[in-house]
Amino acid sequence: MALMIKGLSDSPQAIERVWLYRHILQQMNQEEKTHVSSEELAERANLDVALVRRDLMMLKSVSSLARGYEVSAVLETTAQLLGLGIKVHAAVIGVGNLGRAIMSFFCGTDPNLKIVAAFDTQAYLEGKHIHGCVCHHSRDMLKVVKTENIKVGIITAPDNVVQQIVDTLVQGGVKGILNFSHVKPVVPKDVFVEDLSFGAKLEVVTYYARVNSGLVDA
Amino acid sequence: MALMIKGLSDSPQAIERVWLYRHILQQMNQEEKTHVSSEELAERANLDVALVRRDLMMLKSVSSLARGYEVSAVLETTAQLLGLGIKVHAAVIGVGNLGRAIMSFFCGTDPNLKIVAAFDTQAYLEGKHIHGCVCHHSRDMLKVVKTENIKVGIITAPDNVVQQIVDTLVQGGVKGILNFSHVKPVVPKDVFVEDLSFGAKLEVVTYYARVNSGLVDA
Repeated sequence: MALMIKGLSDSPQAIERVWLYRHILQQMNQEEKTHVSSEELAERANLDVALVRRDLMMLKSVSSLARGYEVSAVLETTAQLLGLGIKVHAAVIGVGNLGRAIMSFFCGTDPNLKIVAAFDTQAYLEGKHIHGCVCHHSRDMLKVVKTENIKVGIITAPDNVVQQIVDTLVQGGVKGILNFSHVKPVVPKDVFVEDLSFGAKLEVVTYYARVNSGLVDA
Repeated sequence: MALMIKGLSDSPQAIERVWLYRHILQQMNQEEKTHVSSEELAERANLDVALVRRDLMMLKSVSSLARGYEVSAVLETTAQLLGLGIKVHAAVIGVGNLGRAIMSFFCGTDPNLKIVAAFDTQAYLEGKHIHGCVCHHSRDMLKVVKTENIKVGIITAPDNVVQQIVDTLVQGGVKGILNFSHVKPVVPKDVFVEDLSFGAKLEVVTYYARVNSGLVDA
């Protein structure tokens, strides 16, 4: 079984799909649906049914011909796969508009992740509580990351300090980074980075909007 | 030449790389560097040098053996490719924390994109100005999208209304959508959607942080 699930674990896209399935299945749970077909799951996830079926097979989900997959069973397997129930500590680095938006989103609501600290170089923020997170000065980052057992870093700081921040986080034991800058930081092999540059994504959308509106030749 | 560049245009990843190159080259411009080697560009972009070289070749960039590529020439070609200089109008749908953060980021700063309107169902927001954008009630979306010639929609609204919003935007002529929900909306072929679900990305990072910390078996 470990090997079967490894096929999913190796791919961030697959992990994201598993997360999406869980989201849909939880909604179905609320709708008091006990079973789901791969076709229905694929339609609600807007994914190819063959892909959904393969994912479910990898999750060793058992389907009955008459009723489909048991919602609660798939929820349980996926929770195990994702290691849910083990709360991971996170920090936000950079307390600007975006940093604050993220804190307000995630502070206290996610059962699997807790934002326990924020860092910024602005002195007036030191010691302040924002959406339940304590703000620290960036100079204390290494110490706080270690004492608070922070494993996830969410970076919303300016480009020119990103690599330096990443180095400190990694030194402190952080193993996963969500990076909102458009610098691609260098990390050791056992640290996972997801780049999520707003600017770049919006530029791509704007480009295709131009092309599809006939404002520019593709 | 159109055909060569088409190889880039077909891939959102390539367009994102082109945007990253421009970002780096603009910094080099400020550093008063006139030329760049593919090795240096690849290093600063944290990309494979063969990929960077292929991109530059597709952009018909000419390199001199002694000095590398001319920074200003690559900036000019990429600006043409991306259709820069034609300002595209955008709207933010959903004026929560995230919507506000996005407005504060982009209002007025981007020479190629202008957020001209925001929409929300909350009555008290109607007519308010937030970071220079006028807020409208969602019921007026179709009308405003048409009159303001809005081509890009940035969706930060709750999941359950996303498809309905997308349908209205598309009807009004929107051709590019940046989608922060974790619903995958259905759109016609000539509308480009980039999904950027915070929650899903953070879950993926958290998963790998668990795995890499030994908290869960991969």
